[in-house]
Amino acid sequence: MSRCYGIIGTGAIGGYYGACLQQAGFPVHFLLRSDYEWVKAKGLRIESVNGDFTLPRVNAYNDPAQMPACDVVLVALKTTQNQTLPQILPSLVGEGSTVVLLQNGLGIEEEVAKIPSVGRVLGGLCFICSNKIGAGHIRHLDYGQVTLGEYAQNNEPCGITMVMQEIEQDFKRAGIETQLSEDLHLSRWQKLVWNISYNGLSVVLDATTEEIMANENSRVLVRQLMEEVAIGAKTRDRAITPDFIEKMLDYTTKMKPYKTSMKLDYDSHRPLEIEAIFGNPLKIAQAANTDLPRIRMLYQQLQFLEVMNCSQCNF
Amino acid sequence: MSRCYGIIGTGAIGGYYGACLQQAGFPVHFLLRSDYEWVKAKGLRIESVNGDFTLPRVNAYNDPAQMPACDVVLVALKTTQNQTLPQILPSLVGEGSTVVLLQNGLGIEEEVAKIPSVGRVLGGLCFICSNKIGAGHIRHLDYGQVTLGEYAQNNEPCGITMVMQEIEQDFKRAGIETQLSEDLHLSRWQKLVWNISYNGLSVVLDATTEEIMANENSRVLVRQLMEEVAIGAKTRDRAITPDFIEKMLDYTTKMKPYKTSMKLDYDSHRPLEIEAIFGNPLKIAQAANTDLPRIRMLYQQLQFLEVMNCSQCNF
Repeated sequence: MSRCYGIIGTGAIGGYYGACLQQAGFPVHFLLRSDYEWVKAKGLRIESVNGDFTLPRVNAYNDPAQMPACDVVLVALKTTQNQTLPQILPSLVGEGSTVVLLQNGLGIEEEVAKIPSVGRVLGGLCFICSNKIGAGHIRHLDYGQVTLGEYAQNNEPCGITMVMQEIEQDFKRAGIETQLSEDLHLSRWQKLVWNISYNGLSVVLDATTEEIMANENSRVLVRQLMEEVAIGAKTRDRAITPDFIEKMLDYTTKMKPYKTSMKLDYDSHRPLEIEAIFGNPLKIAQAANTDLPRIRMLYQQLQFLEVMNCSQCNF
Repeated sequence: MSRCYGIIGTGAIGGYYGACLQQAGFPVHFLLRSDYEWVKAKGLRIESVNGDFTLPRVNAYNDPAQMPACDVVLVALKTTQNQTLPQILPSLVGEGSTVVLLQNGLGIEEEVAKIPSVGRVLGGLCFICSNKIGAGHIRHLDYGQVTLGEYAQNNEPCGITMVMQEIEQDFKRAGIETQLSEDLHLSRWQKLVWNISYNGLSVVLDATTEEIMANENSRVLVRQLMEEVAIGAKTRDRAITPDFIEKMLDYTTKMKPYKTSMKLDYDSHRPLEIEAIFGNPLKIAQAANTDLPRIRMLYQQLQFLEVMNCSQCNF
């Protein structure tokens, strides 16, 4: 029997991957807030570089207590909403359920693993460019790979586990390119190499990745920020090599001009994922008496800008 | 006989101090560019917290070769225009002339002292809030003190020299509050404590001094930047004490909300004084193998923003 999937947060990420899974025949249950009425009535519409499709009927919920327990719960909220998970997850997870955090940043699995009834927790790192452009309407522009890794206490590497392989099989059946990581914590630091540099600078400099890479000064700064991420990772005995940094720089230079997710949030006056992406890595480094001055300065600048940005809007 | 003054750059600074000197009875010669025709015909108009006045007739020039040699030449250009000084100064300075740089930043006296015919060079640090709000029309909002110090090779302290005292006398007669510095280089580093932090962050964070000081994150960052300026000064054996930094922070908290001069330049799409205020101190520290990571990051960010800002305008 097919594994059943729960999607917490049916936006650019959760809406896209959840729709792919339903389209491939898996039973999927979508939790929504603002788009609930619309999606319940009209379903989901996906425009994707891999082919467009619509799902006229989906299992839509606006109350997690109404959802059935799911084998796999994909959390695709912004980390700024993770304080809502202790209310959401317990009714959704049964014996043997797996929670997969399709989110950015560090230190988030730790928190979710503490929630009562939550058992196994995985991280899923999404390398995808997609936007929600309307209610129940997702535009998937580029990429789409998910890197899965399992969380264990103290971020010990778990290797390749059975449940990772099972979810990988499902994802591949749904056309989602999937890789497995033997060490989730290393993978998360690796993803920060990109996220800290480009998410942060795109907001502070009001710039696309292309503009950042076209300027000698910002390009050098990106490299220095990446090197500080490597210093942070080293405090947890994770090695980010100079080669890896070169690869990220090359990869970004060749990417299409891209507004980062943090820049999109900023431009829409939404809260920024500052703690998960900046605050938590800084805490980890600080605990090892390691100063990451450029990352901290970016963190300070982003916190300032977020307050100013939100004082101008309504939440 | 009264000393005669030449004013290079008749804007917010040069226009104000030059007008004060003429009003006090000194012969003053003003070099202008865009406002030349207007000022030649209509003179200068000063709105000042110390009292408004107009000078219906001033000695206005648009060609330095037409100006007489002056006893004291006050340079009040932006440092971004200092490459024009080798064309301007030689005809203006006679035997015994003194050039006073009413400018921000480090390393500028060195360059001016190399210009043929230029003899004695002083620095004048202006603690003033004034704007040019129209042709020949200056609005002096607050403060106004000038700290004078004499330049010597290798930035050796000169003590209080005769010429400093003479100019101080003239300035005081013109109602310009004046202090003398025994060590110009120390005074320049001290001024950078304010300029690096607030000029830089006001542009990058699009903020007033009041907004910067009202936010815990940017306030901590300001202090860290100030501490890096002290580290830079130390490479030249100049001591900037923690007390001095506290005084600057207090002083700025109590100031009226203020757009820094760099922010005004940025908002008007003018070139920014990045090299004098950031580049030169960084070069000095680097020569002593001293890294100032936050100041360097601000320097990189400002260089990026200036290019983007200028690509959107016409020069």
